[in-house]
Amino acid sequence: MEHNINKHISGRFNQELENVRNHVLSMGGLVEQQLSSALDAVSTNDAELAEKVRKNDYKVNAMEVSIDEECTRIIARRQPAASDLRLVIAIAKTIADLERIGDESGKIANVTLESLSGEHKDLLSNLDNLGRHVLTFLQATLDAFTRMDYDAAVKVHKSDDKIDREYEALMRQLMTYMMEDPRSIPQIMSVIWSARALERIGDRCQNICEYIIYFVKGKVVRHTTPEDFESLS
Amino acid sequence: MEHNINKHISGRFNQELENVRNHVLSMGGLVEQQLSSALDAVSTNDAELAEKVRKNDYKVNAMEVSIDEECTRIIARRQPAASDLRLVIAIAKTIADLERIGDESGKIANVTLESLSGEHKDLLSNLDNLGRHVLTFLQATLDAFTRMDYDAAVKVHKSDDKIDREYEALMRQLMTYMMEDPRSIPQIMSVIWSARALERIGDRCQNICEYIIYFVKGKVVRHTTPEDFESLS
Repeated sequence: MEHNINKHISGRFNQELENVRNHVLSMGGLVEQQLSSALDAVSTNDAELAEKVRKNDYKVNAMEVSIDEECTRIIARRQPAASDLRLVIAIAKTIADLERIGDESGKIANVTLESLSGEHKDLLSNLDNLGRHVLTFLQATLDAFTRMDYDAAVKVHKSDDKIDREYEALMRQLMTYMMEDPRSIPQIMSVIWSARALERIGDRCQNICEYIIYFVKGKVVRHTTPEDFESLS
Repeated sequence: MEHNINKHISGRFNQELENVRNHVLSMGGLVEQQLSSALDAVSTNDAELAEKVRKNDYKVNAMEVSIDEECTRIIARRQPAASDLRLVIAIAKTIADLERIGDESGKIANVTLESLSGEHKDLLSNLDNLGRHVLTFLQATLDAFTRMDYDAAVKVHKSDDKIDREYEALMRQLMTYMMEDPRSIPQIMSVIWSARALERIGDRCQNICEYIIYFVKGKVVRHTTPEDFESLS
């Protein structure tokens, strides 16, 4: 009898964990959509779409607050242990990073306010390239999260280096443009802020990969090098 | 007898909570020291001190990991409820922001690598002014955290507006300098990154104030306006 009750409780608990995990996936989907729309707004100079991205940010924020409360409720009522607790903690941290990715997407969309023209078009196309790579990176991160896949998380985590190098190359190009054409500095600064926002999204994705590794291995890998990850396997 | 045991357990639990709180205060003290040294390094152009700030960042990181594990252990073993759980959650979130404030301090120290001279000296003095205000803001935040003081947290949270305005004025000045003297763009960009880091430290302090409010009132106030806070009282 007691066994059955435990099974019943455990079944309901698993359902709650499954629900909260699904909510994170929905939030991830929305954030991915926000970044994708922000990039579209910039590459087509669509101020209306940019405004829509900024307006939709409240949805991302509301999801964060609601999932955060769900996590606290689960900890308080279910008193999860071991890997269940690690899952709830990984989720609580992941949504904080997803929310910030949402914020950064809004900042990227802001570039459309500066109507860049002529020779600056190729800057936008370089910014767009960086943006598409970051979007792919975010998608791979969310995919690793969906499957709580350790190997995928380690692989995605490492690939942020490539994004950093691309970001640095773009930044050097932007500095050169500013030096050659000082009048365009305000416009180029807006591209710089967007590029910076993209680079930060890459960092946030790395954080999420670290939470996946924490969940699977039970080890905090922040502030350790990818080489050290391997000693966990 | 049972009562005594409970009291004993509860006493030990309170001791654990008190310990973790003290560890956060030590971490806060170290982060405050890091920011203060970074500002000193910049204002006196002391590359050695800047290097020391960057090197000490590992200490901040180690404290974050260790307090984070402490929080997880408390949740797993003690299964805290209500305000005890809120305290542990507020602590776990606070240390993440403190760690980032440590990171930003390292970025601020980087300015010393660009030997700014002559007419750029007054830029550094304006950066230093912003930095001192942010340091005061961080101190007020840590003070509110020490006392878990709701009124202080609301007051400090609001005062970030002043820092944002100061940041924007400095940013306009920096853009003007770049336009007037394009050769100085690389140096001025390093001041821009430092100013940005300071602005972000202000945002992190606001986050910590929100965790204090969450602990005291049991409400998540992220993404709400300060005016909405008042409806909580």
